[in-house]
Amino acid sequence: MSNLAIVGATGAVGQEFLKILAERKFPVDELRLLASKRSAGKRIAWQGQELEVQETTHDSFKGIDIALFAGGSASTEYARSAVDSGAVVIDNSSAFRLDPEVPLVVPEVNPEDVKWHKGIIANPNCSTIIMVVALKPIYDLAGIRRVVVSTYQAVSGAGREGIEELGAQVKAWSQGEELISSVFPHQIAFNLVPRIDVFQEGDYTKEEWKMVKETQKIFHVPSMAITATTVRVPVFRSHSESINVETERLVSVSEIREALSKAPGVVVIDDPSKDHYPMPWFSSDKDEVYVGRLRKDYSIDQGFNMWVVGDQIRKGAATNAVQIAELLL
Amino acid sequence: MSNLAIVGATGAVGQEFLKILAERKFPVDELRLLASKRSAGKRIAWQGQELEVQETTHDSFKGIDIALFAGGSASTEYARSAVDSGAVVIDNSSAFRLDPEVPLVVPEVNPEDVKWHKGIIANPNCSTIIMVVALKPIYDLAGIRRVVVSTYQAVSGAGREGIEELGAQVKAWSQGEELISSVFPHQIAFNLVPRIDVFQEGDYTKEEWKMVKETQKIFHVPSMAITATTVRVPVFRSHSESINVETERLVSVSEIREALSKAPGVVVIDDPSKDHYPMPWFSSDKDEVYVGRLRKDYSIDQGFNMWVVGDQIRKGAATNAVQIAELLL
Repeated sequence: MSNLAIVGATGAVGQEFLKILAERKFPVDELRLLASKRSAGKRIAWQGQELEVQETTHDSFKGIDIALFAGGSASTEYARSAVDSGAVVIDNSSAFRLDPEVPLVVPEVNPEDVKWHKGIIANPNCSTIIMVVALKPIYDLAGIRRVVVSTYQAVSGAGREGIEELGAQVKAWSQGEELISSVFPHQIAFNLVPRIDVFQEGDYTKEEWKMVKETQKIFHVPSMAITATTVRVPVFRSHSESINVETERLVSVSEIREALSKAPGVVVIDDPSKDHYPMPWFSSDKDEVYVGRLRKDYSIDQGFNMWVVGDQIRKGAATNAVQIAELLL
Repeated sequence: MSNLAIVGATGAVGQEFLKILAERKFPVDELRLLASKRSAGKRIAWQGQELEVQETTHDSFKGIDIALFAGGSASTEYARSAVDSGAVVIDNSSAFRLDPEVPLVVPEVNPEDVKWHKGIIANPNCSTIIMVVALKPIYDLAGIRRVVVSTYQAVSGAGREGIEELGAQVKAWSQGEELISSVFPHQIAFNLVPRIDVFQEGDYTKEEWKMVKETQKIFHVPSMAITATTVRVPVFRSHSESINVETERLVSVSEIREALSKAPGVVVIDDPSKDHYPMPWFSSDKDEVYVGRLRKDYSIDQGFNMWVVGDQIRKGAATNAVQIAELLL
């Protein structure tokens, strides 16, 4: 049994941590719920107990074995204190992901990297996790020469406020009222915003660089050729990705399909004749990464296309972090 | 002055024909509105006249110089009759696009192809038109080695019924009612459907093959390497496309930006510091193709990414057809 803390327990990812720990029967002795001052005092029911949310401070981690950080600025502020208190931090923020001293782990891809942690293990970006789970069996089968990915990302990536903003805008539209944007830089209802996170080098967004650099780190291939375009879409909580892959070795689509079908954490839904393919509305609340629309890319010799969907809050965040915690046990 | 017929005058594209003919002051003598039997007798106000919709028959085209076909099955049924009556048909359906006897024209790209028509000129698929307008200046500047495109297509691509279905689903959701799908194979509100048109060879959809084969025909490069993934998104009427291009010759992003800025029919909106980039909600009811998020693709030597948005009903259909009609004058 272990003592767990959840930092950011009242947000979208924090709430999902609670659900997943219960579902997976994670062996918890004490569960400490931490959040900002604003949420302190809230009471949350979990597994027959009523837990009170406490304000996160540098002293919040005494006796804690594993601290799950849901993300945001709490990580840079409190993760080191948690480590100093003897906890292992599993951090969902982007703060430590590219730190060479911190392993970046997707259990289906690089579980062995958990071993060399020095107190912090980083949980990758949601879009990255969903992509690498689908790329791993292909990498093992045929190698990866190049990836071109375009994303279709749900508003849940901006947390509970993002989900609420889409709902509010759609309701306002239905009632002929004005649509108000505060979470996203522009209206998201009935629109697409081709910018996620801040702009960085080369006019790429930080989200686009995360998909490139985190994937290279997870596969331990710093030169892996990847380019990404990330786009916010008016969908509540599953991310979708159109992925074009050029492999190192020539393999058939059916060999790739077979490898994906056998891969842990992957479900192939790909029956055009029945209109079966992955879709975000039907992939929410699931832990698996769904792959479909598998096709040869006739524009090159060793290429193919696939359409990948995964729940951003679950496999893209909370589930992956809890799986890392399970590896630690 | 010329006598015009619009076939499918009461649909989304047909209605747009009426707006655009008026806006562009197209020199019309008689305007004959044709539609299915169901719509016959409807009266439509246009330029101070009240026009009555007539049922389309094989005899509907006497005295007509140019017949604009909005699309659908009317084209296969009546286009030849219109030609036999002496009209030039500009056809928005997919029926004749790949016919070697029929030019497929985007005025910004291959206006000269209008000259060799034998009675029918085909208007390309909406996603194809939007893409080729953005590709043309790049093709002229640096050549095109390969294109990988993922689309984000509005419900207007399924006509007026598609627009109504998204609106009705969103209103039902707002009121806690059941969402009903009849136009699209699955729910489209808050969802993505990675299938447009029917499935064909290699598990590509017909829409995906259109983007490949029509682009090759328009550029007169049958071997142009293109692969496409087409996806329906819950947006009302502009299509968006994430386009990755590998050029034949090495050029800088700023050279490409300059070429796009000067190109007819293209507007570059690309200022990350001000959060300016093309978005479908703000590109509707416009004739131009908007290009932004221009970036070098660091995964190859001669590649870059761009994000392209265009109004599916206007430049993607009606505007392009009226531009072809203008070329005929």
